[in-house]
Amino acid sequence: MIKRYIYGNPIPTNAVAATDIENGEGELQYFSEIEMGGKIILSYAMNDDDIVYGLGEANRGLNKRGGLYSSYCTDDPNQTEEKQSFYGAHNFLVISGMISVGVFIDCPGEVTFDIGYTSPNMLNIKPGTGDFVLYLIEGKSAYDVVRQFRAMIGRSYIAPRWAFGFQQSRWSYMDEDEIREVVRRHREKGIPLDAVYLDIDYMDGYKDFTVSDERFPDFPAFVQEMRSQGVRLVPIIDAGVKIEEGYDIYEEGRQHGLFCKRSDGSDFVAGVWPGKTHFPDFMNSNARAWFGSKYKVLIDAGIEGFWNDMNEPAMFYTEEGIEEAKQYIADFDFDCGDPGKYFELAGKLTHMSNRKKDYESFYHNMDGTVVCHDQVHNLYGAYMTRAAGEAFAQIVPDKRMLLFSRASYIGSHRYGGIWTGDNQSWWSHLLMNIKMMPSLNMCGYMYSGADLGGFGSNCTRDLLLRWLEFGIFTPLMRDHSAQGTRRQECYAFGETEDFKNIISVRYSLLPYLYSEYMKACLSGDMLFKPLEFEYPSDNFARTVEDQLLVGDSIMIAPVYEQNAVGRYVYLPEDMLYVVFRSSSLRRYQVMSRGLHFIPAAVNEVPMFIRKNKILPLCRTAQCTDQIDTSMFELIAFADSACEYRMYEDDGISYNFTSPENYVPFRIVENEGVLTADSSKKIVKLTLY
Amino acid sequence: MIKRYIYGNPIPTNAVAATDIENGEGELQYFSEIEMGGKIILSYAMNDDDIVYGLGEANRGLNKRGGLYSSYCTDDPNQTEEKQSFYGAHNFLVISGMISVGVFIDCPGEVTFDIGYTSPNMLNIKPGTGDFVLYLIEGKSAYDVVRQFRAMIGRSYIAPRWAFGFQQSRWSYMDEDEIREVVRRHREKGIPLDAVYLDIDYMDGYKDFTVSDERFPDFPAFVQEMRSQGVRLVPIIDAGVKIEEGYDIYEEGRQHGLFCKRSDGSDFVAGVWPGKTHFPDFMNSNARAWFGSKYKVLIDAGIEGFWNDMNEPAMFYTEEGIEEAKQYIADFDFDCGDPGKYFELAGKLTHMSNRKKDYESFYHNMDGTVVCHDQVHNLYGAYMTRAAGEAFAQIVPDKRMLLFSRASYIGSHRYGGIWTGDNQSWWSHLLMNIKMMPSLNMCGYMYSGADLGGFGSNCTRDLLLRWLEFGIFTPLMRDHSAQGTRRQECYAFGETEDFKNIISVRYSLLPYLYSEYMKACLSGDMLFKPLEFEYPSDNFARTVEDQLLVGDSIMIAPVYEQNAVGRYVYLPEDMLYVVFRSSSLRRYQVMSRGLHFIPAAVNEVPMFIRKNKILPLCRTAQCTDQIDTSMFELIAFADSACEYRMYEDDGISYNFTSPENYVPFRIVENEGVLTADSSKKIVKLTLY
Repeated sequence: MIKRYIYGNPIPTNAVAATDIENGEGELQYFSEIEMGGKIILSYAMNDDDIVYGLGEANRGLNKRGGLYSSYCTDDPNQTEEKQSFYGAHNFLVISGMISVGVFIDCPGEVTFDIGYTSPNMLNIKPGTGDFVLYLIEGKSAYDVVRQFRAMIGRSYIAPRWAFGFQQSRWSYMDEDEIREVVRRHREKGIPLDAVYLDIDYMDGYKDFTVSDERFPDFPAFVQEMRSQGVRLVPIIDAGVKIEEGYDIYEEGRQHGLFCKRSDGSDFVAGVWPGKTHFPDFMNSNARAWFGSKYKVLIDAGIEGFWNDMNEPAMFYTEEGIEEAKQYIADFDFDCGDPGKYFELAGKLTHMSNRKKDYESFYHNMDGTVVCHDQVHNLYGAYMTRAAGEAFAQIVPDKRMLLFSRASYIGSHRYGGIWTGDNQSWWSHLLMNIKMMPSLNMCGYMYSGADLGGFGSNCTRDLLLRWLEFGIFTPLMRDHSAQGTRRQECYAFGETEDFKNIISVRYSLLPYLYSEYMKACLSGDMLFKPLEFEYPSDNFARTVEDQLLVGDSIMIAPVYEQNAVGRYVYLPEDMLYVVFRSSSLRRYQVMSRGLHFIPAAVNEVPMFIRKNKILPLCRTAQCTDQIDTSMFELIAFADSACEYRMYEDDGISYNFTSPENYVPFRIVENEGVLTADSSKKIVKLTLY
Repeated sequence: MIKRYIYGNPIPTNAVAATDIENGEGELQYFSEIEMGGKIILSYAMNDDDIVYGLGEANRGLNKRGGLYSSYCTDDPNQTEEKQSFYGAHNFLVISGMISVGVFIDCPGEVTFDIGYTSPNMLNIKPGTGDFVLYLIEGKSAYDVVRQFRAMIGRSYIAPRWAFGFQQSRWSYMDEDEIREVVRRHREKGIPLDAVYLDIDYMDGYKDFTVSDERFPDFPAFVQEMRSQGVRLVPIIDAGVKIEEGYDIYEEGRQHGLFCKRSDGSDFVAGVWPGKTHFPDFMNSNARAWFGSKYKVLIDAGIEGFWNDMNEPAMFYTEEGIEEAKQYIADFDFDCGDPGKYFELAGKLTHMSNRKKDYESFYHNMDGTVVCHDQVHNLYGAYMTRAAGEAFAQIVPDKRMLLFSRASYIGSHRYGGIWTGDNQSWWSHLLMNIKMMPSLNMCGYMYSGADLGGFGSNCTRDLLLRWLEFGIFTPLMRDHSAQGTRRQECYAFGETEDFKNIISVRYSLLPYLYSEYMKACLSGDMLFKPLEFEYPSDNFARTVEDQLLVGDSIMIAPVYEQNAVGRYVYLPEDMLYVVFRSSSLRRYQVMSRGLHFIPAAVNEVPMFIRKNKILPLCRTAQCTDQIDTSMFELIAFADSACEYRMYEDDGISYNFTSPENYVPFRIVENEGVLTADSSKKIVKLTLY
C-alpha cells in the first residue's frame, strides 16, 4: 500500500513510473513532521532492533543505522567512513522491524538522512526544500516494501547479454595498439574477455562524440577488428562540452541555447577535462533529444555500449572560482607568520572543485521553467542517462545497448545502469561493494558493479583475486584502474592461471546469472538479496551483512580480508558448499544450518547452493558469443523433486515475453531415485 | 641467537641496549643481498603460509603480508589502506613459519619493506642508505624471537600507575573553566577520570614551557585544585620553538647554537603552530640536556606527565617552500584552459607540508658530526623523548613521570610510551588499534594506546562505546578528539550510564592490567599477544587477527563493526565467557574450544578467562588513587589448583624488586573442593 504526500510545489523528477498512486489523506503516518522556516524535518523513532535498508549507492553497511547521509551527487573518490555523499542519490529507505515501512523522498535537490547518527534511535530526514513528494509504503516485510517500490518506479533498464562478460578498462588505453595488446594478452592467457573500455583519451581533445584520428586512424574498422575477436569497445561520454570554435556540438548547443546558463543568460563555464566547457541542459527536452542524437555518430561506427561520466556534474573549477582564487592570492601576505592563513590558501585552491556555490550559480530551462541547478542537482546525471536511453530507442529501437552512468537519481534506472564511481584499491571498498549491491537493487539499479580491484591506489594480486571472486556475481564485471596506479589487468600479476580460472567461473555461471538478472528485472525483483529477505523469521540471518543471496539458487559469502584463509559464515538452512578452483574443478561439502568457518584459498570461489535448488552451469568460454547453451551441468542439493526455470533469450532484442524464453531444469523422482530432466542436454548431474 | 651485521658506516641510534651481541661471520643467512648503487636490497622468499609479524606502528593487520611500508615518521592523520608511513618507525619484523627468524634494520633514515606487495611471496627490505646495522634473530618460535629482541633493546619505559586511569582530552580545552566543567561532568555522572589533557592552547602563543596567564591565571594552584579532585593535568610539548625576540627558549637556543641548521649555518625555519619556529637539535647531547631541563618549569608547577607532539617533526611549510609557491603563483597563467595546471597549482600549496625536500635541507650536529636530517629523520621524535626521559631522571629521580610521544624509533621505548598519533573516528581505525597493540609490544612499546573514539571526523555514540570496550585494556586509555569535530566526551552522547559502566570495568581490572603490564615490562614480555604466541601448535589460532591475549589470564574479542550484535570468535581451548554490563553486573558462560558467535550488546564488554587461570577484580573507583587493593573478587575458570601472581607496587617509585611486590591468589583444592586463598581479602570467588 503506497500513499503519496505532496509538500509545496515539487519539481517533477520522472522518478515514479506508476500513475495510480493514491494521495494520502490526513496526517502523515509513522513520521512526525516539524516545520522550520519553510522546510520540513521528518522524524521517526526507531526501535533498538529496527534495521534501516536502502539509500542505494551510499556509505556504510546494508543497515544504514549510525550514519549521516546527504543525497547530493558528488565526485569524491576518497570514500572514507565519514563521507556523506557518493556519486548517486537514491532517497529510498525501508525500516524493517515490528513494522515494515518504506519512504521515498522524491526531491531532486539535497536531502539529508540522519539515521541514528545524532541520536541512536532517531531517524531524521531533512529535504533541503519544502517542495517535494513523499511516498510512504506499508508492507508485510521489508522485501514486500521493496517490491512495491520497484513496481512503482517502473521496470529497470535491461542490458544486453554480452555485457555480462568480463570487461577490462583503464584510464586510459591510449591507442589501437595498446588495446590490441590488452586483448592479445587476455586471449593468449586464456582469460575470458568481452569488452575493453575507451576512457577519455580516445577522444580528440576530450571532445564528446569525436574520436582521435591519430590514436584511431580508422575507428569503425578497429571496432570491427575487435568485434571479430569477441571484444566490444565501450567509449566514455562526459557531460561537459568543450568550448572550441568550429566544434559542431559546441556550436550547435550555443546556437540553439541548449547549455546551462548563468543568471545573466550567458552560458555557464566550468573547467573539466577538456578545459573550459559548457554543460548541456539535460533538464530540457530539446537539449536531451539533441545530445542523445549525437550518440549515433559512435553507434554508426559499430559501438554497442557507452558509459556516461562526470555527470554529477563534476567541475574542477569555474571561471568565478578562479577569479576569486586569483584575488585571494593577489591580496595574500606571503609572510610565514600564521599557519592558519596557509591552510586557508591551500584550501582555497583545493576546494575549487565541486563547490556548492557554483552549483547554485547556474540554471536550467526545464521546458519553460527556469530552475537553479542546485535545486535539481541530483537529476543532472540521471537526465543525461535519460537522454541517451531515449535516443537509443530512436536510433536502434530493436537492440539493447549497454549504458551506465556515474551520477544517478531514481528514475534513471529505467534508462541505464550505474557503476559505483571512482573507488580505491582498498579491502574496505571490496566489502562496501558487497554490501552496496542489494541496496542498489532496492532502488532499481540492477545492472551495476564497482571498479573491480579499485580505481585509485595500487592494487595487489590478492586484492584483485578476492574482488574478482565477488565480481563474478555482479552484472557489470569490470576491472578498472586510474592513470598513475599500478597496472591492474589480470595478466599484470603473474600466475595468470588463477585469474583465468576465476573468470571462467563467471562464464559457467553466466546463463544462471543472466536468467536471475532478467527475471528480477522483468518482475521488479532483486538479484542480490540480504538474508532476511528470504529467511524473514531467522533473527540471526537479519544481522548478517556480508553474505548475500544471488538469485534463487545460491548464497555467496565472499572473502574480503587480506591474508584470510577463509571466513565465518552463517547458514540459515542446510546448504551445499561448493568451492570453485576453476569452472570445472570443484569440491563439495554438505553443511548444516548454523555457524561455520569455511576455508577458501585466495584462488578459490566459495558458493553455497540452497536446499532443493538447482544451479545450472555451462562450459566456460572466451567470450559470451561463444557460450554453448545447448548443454548444461547441473549441481543440485536436493532430497526431493525440484525445479529451476532458466530464462534465456537472444540477449540483444526486447523480445522478453516468449514462453520459449523459459527452460525448466528438473530434478525428478523415479522409484526413489532423483534424476535430471530438461529439454537441454544435461551432460552431468552432481547431486547431494 | 642474535647476530649483528654491520653495513658501511652506520650512524649510531641508541636503539640497542645490549652490548654483547656477536657480529655475524660469513654470508648473511636467510636473506639474499643485492647491491645496487651503494644500497642493499635484502630479500627473503616467503612460504605460502609464513606470517610476518612486527613493524610496530604500521598499517594493515597483525600479519604484514601484502603491504608496502616505509619507515619514515610522517604526520598524516588520514590513515587509509594505501598509506605506507605512520607516525612511528619500527624496523623490526619476525617471519613465522617453518622457521622463526627476526630481523631488525637499525637505520635512522628511510627503510622500505615490501612484504609480498609487489610479488606475493617476496619480502624485500630496502634501506635508503648502504650504512646500517642488521640484527638477525633465530628463535624457537616467533614469540621466542620477540623475547630475544626485547631483551636486546632493553627494558621499556614504565609509566606511573595513575596513568592507567581513564584520561580525557580534546584539542583544546581552552581554559581553567572548561577543564573544571569537563571534570565536573565526569564526576557528576560517576564516570571515572584520572587525567585531563592540555593541548596546544594552554600555552602562551604556542610557546613551549609557557602557560597562558589569561587562560590559567594561577597555574600551580589550578594543578593542585584538579589534583585534589583526583585529576592530573597532562600538557603537550611540541617540537618547534617559536621564533620570538625575548622568549627565553628561543634566545637560549639561538645563542648556544642548539637548533637545527641549514647548510649555510643559519638556523632552519619551519612553520608550525606558533608560526615560524626553530627545531631543537635533539641529536645533540647539549641540546637534549638543555631542552630536557625546561620540563622542570612545568614539573615545578605540579605537572606529573607530558605528551611530546609534532616531533616527526611535522612542518606545515618552510620559508623555502613558501618562496617556491610564491614564484610559482607569480608565473601562473590564470586562464582556465588546462585543468592539469590547476591540479598542479593546488598541489603546490597542499603539498607544502612535510616535504622530503625540506627534510633534506637541514642538519644536525651529532656531538661533532654534521648529519643531514633526512638521514636520521626517524630519530628526531625518539631523541626528543630521550631528552625528556633523561631530564626526568635528573629532575625527579625517584618518581615515575607519564611520558609519551607521537613520533618514535625503537630505542625511545626506554624513555617513554607512544600514542598512535592522529587517527579518525572510523570503525576501521578501531580495528587497526586492536591489531596494532601486539605489534607495538613486539617493538618495545608497552605504554601505548590510540585516540579512543578517533581524533579526526565525528564520532558516534556506538563507535565510542565499542572503542572504549577495547580501550579499557590498553595501558593508555584516552578519549581524544580534534577541534571542529563533534564533542566526544562520554557525557556528550546521552545515557551516560553505559559509559560509566564500561569505564568502571577498567578500574576493576586495573590491578590485573597493571600487574600484567609491569610483569611484561620487567621481563621483556608482551601484554598483548597474538593467539599463536600462546597456542603455537594451533594452526587456526595463528590466522586469527582480531582476538588478543591480554596478559596471562584473559583473551579479548572486541566488537568493531557498526550495528553488530556480537561477533564470531575462535576459542583455542575451553574458556569462560564473561560479559560485563558494568564492573559488577556480569554474566558467565563456559564455552568449548572451537567456533562461536558471542552476543555482545553495544554497552557490554566481552572477555574470556582462560582455563585454570584467575582474574582478580577490585571494586571500581572514580580515580586510581581511590582504588582499594585490600580486597578482591576472583573469577576463575578452574578444574584444579592454580595460581595468579599479582604484581603491585606504590605505582610511582622505581622500587620494582621487592619480593613483597608479588601477591599470590590461589585456587586450592581441599578434599575435592576448590577454594580461594590469598593474603588479600577475597570478598567473592566466582568459580566455573
